Amino acid sequence: MTFPVAQKYNIQIGPITQANFNWLEAKNYAGWVLFADENTAELCLPRIEEFLPEDTPVIVVPEGELNKNLETCQDMWEDLFSAGVGRRWCAICLGGGVLEDMAGFVSSTYKRGIDFLQIPTTLLSMVDSSVGGKLGIDFNNVKNSIGVFNDPIGVWIDPAFLQTLPAREVRSGYGEIIKHGLIADREQWNQLKTITDLTAVDWQTIIPASVNVKREIVLEDPFEKGLRKALNFGHTIGHAIESYWLETDHRLFHGEAIAAGMIMEAWLSTQLDELTEEDLTEISNYCLAVYGHQNVPEEAFPELLALMQQDKKNEDHRINFTLLSAPGKARVNATAEGELILAAIRYYNQLA
Amino acid sequence: MTFPVAQKYNIQIGPITQANFNWLEAKNYAGWVLFADENTAELCLPRIEEFLPEDTPVIVVPEGELNKNLETCQDMWEDLFSAGVGRRWCAICLGGGVLEDMAGFVSSTYKRGIDFLQIPTTLLSMVDSSVGGKLGIDFNNVKNSIGVFNDPIGVWIDPAFLQTLPAREVRSGYGEIIKHGLIADREQWNQLKTITDLTAVDWQTIIPASVNVKREIVLEDPFEKGLRKALNFGHTIGHAIESYWLETDHRLFHGEAIAAGMIMEAWLSTQLDELTEEDLTEISNYCLAVYGHQNVPEEAFPELLALMQQDKKNEDHRINFTLLSAPGKARVNATAEGELILAAIRYYNQLA
Repeated sequence: MTFPVAQKYNIQIGPITQANFNWLEAKNYAGWVLFADENTAELCLPRIEEFLPEDTPVIVVPEGELNKNLETCQDMWEDLFSAGVGRRWCAICLGGGVLEDMAGFVSSTYKRGIDFLQIPTTLLSMVDSSVGGKLGIDFNNVKNSIGVFNDPIGVWIDPAFLQTLPAREVRSGYGEIIKHGLIADREQWNQLKTITDLTAVDWQTIIPASVNVKREIVLEDPFEKGLRKALNFGHTIGHAIESYWLETDHRLFHGEAIAAGMIMEAWLSTQLDELTEEDLTEISNYCLAVYGHQNVPEEAFPELLALMQQDKKNEDHRINFTLLSAPGKARVNATAEGELILAAIRYYNQLA
Repeated sequence: MTFPVAQKYNIQIGPITQANFNWLEAKNYAGWVLFADENTAELCLPRIEEFLPEDTPVIVVPEGELNKNLETCQDMWEDLFSAGVGRRWCAICLGGGVLEDMAGFVSSTYKRGIDFLQIPTTLLSMVDSSVGGKLGIDFNNVKNSIGVFNDPIGVWIDPAFLQTLPAREVRSGYGEIIKHGLIADREQWNQLKTITDLTAVDWQTIIPASVNVKREIVLEDPFEKGLRKALNFGHTIGHAIESYWLETDHRLFHGEAIAAGMIMEAWLSTQLDELTEEDLTEISNYCLAVYGHQNVPEEAFPELLALMQQDKKNEDHRINFTLLSAPGKARVNATAEGELILAAIRYYNQLA
């Protein structure tokens, strides 16, 4: 069964079947080419291989954020040329956020752009990166600093791929689902906060509402001029924490860092907006229950502030936040001083 | 005086003055950055320098098609980072087609795209490449094979820059003006064919009609699905000739190759469409009067056919042409067999 979530993005949520490929076939492309990474080529491709013509070129790229760069793109463009891919072809991108961002960018720039289809294989890419048109690669040590906005012809979200993932990876993607509830869907938040066992979740019912939050926001603000910043809730401090630990042995997953960031920014919301202490406690307790606690040492504070300053979302060197007025209600373009930000981190630290 | 040719592309034709920069100023960008090549930095920048804030970052790139590649783009992206250029900045691109294509592509992909403005400095870029949104670089030995479609916020065409160009360069750009008349504006063609001295042309009156042809076609068909192929008149054989001589000591300029191509494809139009012998003779005589004659040796024929086969505009290995039914009236998606194409080249050769 397939839930059509949106016309514009042509998002389908449900098992991928022959019907999906009949739809693609009817578009009369001159050919299909498939992008996968090392993992998805092994674990996910077998699930859809039967639907592809035998001579479909498959371009496999090394997995992981470290390979999300221009060198990998060059290999991918060269592979497209070698495979004889023309302007009327369609690229099928099978992977998590890194593969989707990069293969979408490569497709959008090959011969000034060929169509592409996203098949996200991680929870994070299903509810977040595959919707909204942000494509790109890391450059000059800055994440996603070269890229374009461009939409795929379709996004096929099949929760069955989640079975290929380690539990920690699923839990990480779940962070964005919590965030979507908190910024725009109180009803879903009320449902989520009762979930304690992620292995027992019926993703087929949880994912559509979450994708819908993302979709509605990006439809309203495709180029991140305003409203889209709501999606940054938890990410201003969360990104800095993620970057800080990236350089250490103790790597945090994206959702783990964002969960800590959401607690800190929920606290800021009680100081600078109307979030109640009661809601803050509920948010903190739930995020801690799912993600545990990770102390942030005081000696990291200066670097964390510096990382927030550099973040491309900030203009004129002020630190920009998205706050909550209540669960399900975000306010963009709030700003906070350094001292208050450090107080937010200290609030989190004392929850240990 | 400024002729506004089009709202959509915000094309202005006339001397660039303070008024232009007041318009840009009113857009409240966080900053401006200027791209130029070695030549335009020396010969064209002085003309507009007085209008720029003194601390405007100027990024100068090596000139010429050989540098229109990913390595130069990397330097440009790095220079944008070094200059602290943010997402709310605007890039001003001052140069010919190579610089405009490349700086537009770099701007369109830096931080997923910043706004850019085109100031074309060659006749070719004024009437052709600066309108229509085609941006990109050469890759894998294929011209313009990596790029995007994206429109600048404005195109400022100042014929005064033509004084910085060698006569042969102006004559080359004039080829596209002839083409625009032949495919879509019989009235302009009738005017053009009386012009014998290109140094005495009033460009301020010639350029707007020519730009308008390009503009109307690309507005109708921004992504080259159909009508836009009309712009390929003279280019199927012309491009092959240009590529062939590129590998020899005797380099042909783009307009020179296209002039020969237009004669050949006009001949094809008498065979496969309704162009009259009289019109063919007029087109041939005029192109020869402006561009002279360049014999195409028989031993080049196989390679020329191979080059046409490779051209990205062709699908399914047939050779695709745009023909003339009459001056001012083009027909797209014609095809021709190899033997007839060689006959067209022989027709041209015997005009010597």
